[in-house]
Amino acid sequence: MKNYKQIFRGTAFTSKSPKEIQILKDHLFCIQADGSIEKIVAPDEPDYQLLLDAYQDKNYFHSLKEGQYLLPGFIDLHVHAPQWAQSGTALDIPLYDWLNTYTFPLESKFADLDFAKAIYEDVVSTLLANGTTTALYFATVHKEASLLLAEICAHKGQRGLVGKVVMDDPQQNPDFYRDADTPTALADTEEFILAVKELAKTTKQGVYPVVTPRFIPSCTDEALKGLGQLAAKYDTYVQSHCSESDWAHGYVKDRFNKNDAFALHDFGLLRDKSVMAHCNFLDDPDAELFAETGTAVAHCPISNAYFANSVIPIAHFHAKGVEIGLGSDISGGFSPSLFDNIRQAVISSRMLEDGVNTSLPAQERGVPGSRITVHEAFYLATAGGGESLSLPIGRIEEKFAWDVQIIDTKLPSAKLPIFDDKEALEDVFQKILYLVRPENIREVWVQGEQVHSR
Amino acid sequence: MKNYKQIFRGTAFTSKSPKEIQILKDHLFCIQADGSIEKIVAPDEPDYQLLLDAYQDKNYFHSLKEGQYLLPGFIDLHVHAPQWAQSGTALDIPLYDWLNTYTFPLESKFADLDFAKAIYEDVVSTLLANGTTTALYFATVHKEASLLLAEICAHKGQRGLVGKVVMDDPQQNPDFYRDADTPTALADTEEFILAVKELAKTTKQGVYPVVTPRFIPSCTDEALKGLGQLAAKYDTYVQSHCSESDWAHGYVKDRFNKNDAFALHDFGLLRDKSVMAHCNFLDDPDAELFAETGTAVAHCPISNAYFANSVIPIAHFHAKGVEIGLGSDISGGFSPSLFDNIRQAVISSRMLEDGVNTSLPAQERGVPGSRITVHEAFYLATAGGGESLSLPIGRIEEKFAWDVQIIDTKLPSAKLPIFDDKEALEDVFQKILYLVRPENIREVWVQGEQVHSR
Ligand SMILES: [Zn+2]
Ligand SMILES: [Zn+2]
Repeated sequence: MKNYKQIFRGTAFTSKSPKEIQILKDHLFCIQADGSIEKIVAPDEPDYQLLLDAYQDKNYFHSLKEGQYLLPGFIDLHVHAPQWAQSGTALDIPLYDWLNTYTFPLESKFADLDFAKAIYEDVVSTLLANGTTTALYFATVHKEASLLLAEICAHKGQRGLVGKVVMDDPQQNPDFYRDADTPTALADTEEFILAVKELAKTTKQGVYPVVTPRFIPSCTDEALKGLGQLAAKYDTYVQSHCSESDWAHGYVKDRFNKNDAFALHDFGLLRDKSVMAHCNFLDDPDAELFAETGTAVAHCPISNAYFANSVIPIAHFHAKGVEIGLGSDISGGFSPSLFDNIRQAVISSRMLEDGVNTSLPAQERGVPGSRITVHEAFYLATAGGGESLSLPIGRIEEKFAWDVQIIDTKLPSAKLPIFDDKEALEDVFQKILYLVRPENIREVWVQGEQVHSR
Repeated sequence: MKNYKQIFRGTAFTSKSPKEIQILKDHLFCIQADGSIEKIVAPDEPDYQLLLDAYQDKNYFHSLKEGQYLLPGFIDLHVHAPQWAQSGTALDIPLYDWLNTYTFPLESKFADLDFAKAIYEDVVSTLLANGTTTALYFATVHKEASLLLAEICAHKGQRGLVGKVVMDDPQQNPDFYRDADTPTALADTEEFILAVKELAKTTKQGVYPVVTPRFIPSCTDEALKGLGQLAAKYDTYVQSHCSESDWAHGYVKDRFNKNDAFALHDFGLLRDKSVMAHCNFLDDPDAELFAETGTAVAHCPISNAYFANSVIPIAHFHAKGVEIGLGSDISGGFSPSLFDNIRQAVISSRMLEDGVNTSLPAQERGVPGSRITVHEAFYLATAGGGESLSLPIGRIEEKFAWDVQIIDTKLPSAKLPIFDDKEALEDVFQKILYLVRPENIREVWVQGEQVHSR
């Protein structure tokens, strides 16, 4: 029998397809030294009892308690790490004021590495405590502080994909917060890519550099072109914002006489490793271009309510074959929890389907066929995120990374309303998605290592 | 100097008006034996130091720790207590199946008092732990179990307003779950009213019987008329559902050739002590009738996303002078937390303002002027709820009940992202509203008694 690094025994929920979950009841999960799942064994398989006999007394055999369940770790496809410091504030003001009075002054402070360290350590710990095992981060324009964020992810055990933000256009960005000039923006990005690739060599769970133009309005053509070339040269991830709001969508159309998606594509920024935040206003050709290029959408349902002027038609884009995951969009979205974003993704889709304006007749109010179920929202937060990043994460399945959260439904201070020990596991799953609080998340594991417990 | 029962020292947030909060920084709050706030003293008042000298060593002097804040307890205007057992499940299915396959079979089980006790004790404790100090409950058709819910509220210290549900129409309700007949429904309601009034005599914080027709579609004309008469005879609270969805709104129009509001009014069910859940489809004359009669709206933002086919125009109804509070609507809404409902109330209002359908031009998409701020949503959950119930609750103000929650923003396991000890209290307030979890709620007090701590 093989020598495993860890074995877990318990019941897991994982996506079988966007609409269906797989319930692995009382299975054994055998983890290799590299942190991947080597083998999953059902109770009716012959190996089950053999494995139990051989391992159950070892200290690396973990048996989940009654009422505890395994979920895949969440994958947050859009987080502005520095904005954690202002999460939950100033959401009642217009975007322009939000950026210029709050966000840019805050981000500019990350020139100070001590300040950056305090916020970045806290946001990475907070996301882990909320079950987020992989996060795709916007840092700031500062090369050093951005590298510090990657180092903190590496150190705390989170799978971090980190971008030094580029915003080089002096016409569009405040003097106190932008890249010095275009060549510096590109040189800093290249140095940042190389430094993170170096860091990755000693990071078990992986850290990855991400080419990160803030969005088209903040960048010159030269910067966008240069960033596309860097992404190709180093085969990196790319992230930006795309067609988020009426204003942003209109701005790009005015500048390039085409939609955001095609403009980004012209600069080489739509790749299989690209993730674009929001994307509410993609039209059908845009969505088809996303599907063709393997570009993914980071759906940020909480943030969209404040800044995107609309609900993104997720069901429609899914049907067109676009890869989609979930993003918290801290701090456009206030919550560090993808549980909260799963809930809002369902709610927003219902509002798109039924519409909102009571003065319209029902048949003119909404967009039929727009709802997604909580199973689909769970898929977005897990398997969909993994596909978006083309990494073997987001599912509890052989060959995937052991990135999981252990949920306790019977914690006395936060027990879920489960009154029948024979309650269907399908219903338990739904109660978990709708009612779990951070305190129900007792352990979080990334790549076979425990990174959070309480 | 007067002899106080309790004195608290700390910083409190309370509504000054629907749009503005009052920040009482480092004030003293002096509580009488009856549980009301006798006196609030600012640091610059002469009494302040005298009170400190006289009381600060007493064991009933409570000094909040750094990072702790006082908020008024929340007032939940719409909770189906029995449905707590299915909270978070079956929200992806149509309303008809939701009622007939899940909800009615569950509610019918409350004939069994042991079953009822387990669920009711848990839901009352859970709401208290979420900061809800007053709740307006639908129980079930069962007189005894409904009284048990009132007793549990009385015992646990929550201010409970409880209704035995009436659903007497044999054509509209399943045989396994309805009142036996109309006279029985009315007689049970009257006995229930008397029993709760008796219980109230020994309940410091108050318990109140509520006349509760489930909604017009489930009741005969005779029952509705009889319930209106009982409400007048005993001057009780009244609750029901009103114009919740396209279907419900249309049903009443077909049956009475008028809107829900006017039909309810004809039966004597719109009174100053009436609270109607949802009310999404009120038209202007309906809203004016609500304002004239003092009938309040229980806004249930989470539930509405699933079952109300629309977003209620809160800003519009507020401008018309309608009293409005918040409801969790467990289990049409999954969350027992009014913090969650505050957040969704803001989000839903933004979606109504901006609209949802990206294929429409911006100016045709939404309903301008519909947004409410987080300050207004807080008002709904506190002062607005108190006004809806015509009780001196929902504000931290002299003569009001000492119903408060103590929030810890620095709890190590759930600290809020406050990195600057000099952060403006206005921003701290917003972070509390958007980011607090149940574990941040360290103590809950109702009518001067501690009813929850952790
Ligand atoms: Zn963003
Ligand atoms: Zn209801």
